[in-house]
Amino acid sequence: MGKVLIHSTVTLDGFMADGDGGVDWMFGFTEAAEDREVLNDVMAEIGAVLGGANKTQTIDEGEEPYGGTLKVPVFLMTHTPHAPIEKDGTTYRFVIDDIALAVREAQDAAGDKSVTLLGGSIARQCLERGLVDEIQLHVVPVLLGKGISLFSGLENPIKLERLNTAAYASVTHLRFRVVR
Amino acid sequence: MGKVLIHSTVTLDGFMADGDGGVDWMFGFTEAAEDREVLNDVMAEIGAVLGGANKTQTIDEGEEPYGGTLKVPVFLMTHTPHAPIEKDGTTYRFVIDDIALAVREAQDAAGDKSVTLLGGSIARQCLERGLVDEIQLHVVPVLLGKGISLFSGLENPIKLERLNTAAYASVTHLRFRVVR
Repeated sequence: MGKVLIHSTVTLDGFMADGDGGVDWMFGFTEAAEDREVLNDVMAEIGAVLGGANKTQTIDEGEEPYGGTLKVPVFLMTHTPHAPIEKDGTTYRFVIDDIALAVREAQDAAGDKSVTLLGGSIARQCLERGLVDEIQLHVVPVLLGKGISLFSGLENPIKLERLNTAAYASVTHLRFRVVR
Repeated sequence: MGKVLIHSTVTLDGFMADGDGGVDWMFGFTEAAEDREVLNDVMAEIGAVLGGANKTQTIDEGEEPYGGTLKVPVFLMTHTPHAPIEKDGTTYRFVIDDIALAVREAQDAAGDKSVTLLGGSIARQCLERGLVDEIQLHVVPVLLGKGISLFSGLENPIKLERLNTAAYASVTHLRFRVVR
């Protein structure tokens, strides 16, 4: 069974997007070949993606996870039944409300590869349920002050173990294991 | 003139303390000799400390900055006049409301060394006024979910430049320059 991984690019103050969902701050930083290698390694590790209910709409609007570049099964939480969507070679499946079930289905689809969690709400809910194995962050050197936070709102403290830290140009890559 | 430095130990989600001001989460992580070296290097760089008005009370209560181990002048913001305090070889001076003046006075006292900013409010106010040169964080591998945030409430985005990243055992040491 593969790992369940929170994977996100964040600002130094932990935002995934500004208050309007914008990610302009992500771009324009110096990049080294090693940075792309770290990203490629994480991408190669991903066997399925699980996103929150709020992601369903963005798929319909043409905003696919990972910009649609990652051809792996995508599972999305939903509150009402939703038929699977086939789009550009990717299958989107919908799971009603049961997050633990959704994680299991995504893990089944991923095989030995990792399931990445898309969005803060699903990441926090899975953390709180003890369903997350590791956290991979790409920290961009910017402070936003406000926006859509990855971790804000967690109900209980979570202990981590530092696994790997890497930095070559602007971005800092951090990998942690969740201690349960 | 020395640098103005935000220096803080924080959780991965950016908290300096839990909701009750507690820092129990800071302790009990594996430490390497190199971690102590990084901390000692930062300590040796500090020539003065500037804290917010909320720190005045904690001095009276016996909670000195850096546990009282750092024998450098301490400047504290205040809303009402307060006579200097001499305590265990450290002088505490009070500056009424004018943060830019307080930074200048602390820099004068620090000489070629750095002024560190103590607490989130003073750090954010100085960031917003363009008074901060660098940020040094020691990131402890824990998520608190809520607590006293270092950066939360910043009004405007701040661009940074990554200067140094180091990790040996549990803690990740991050150093940034503020781009103005």
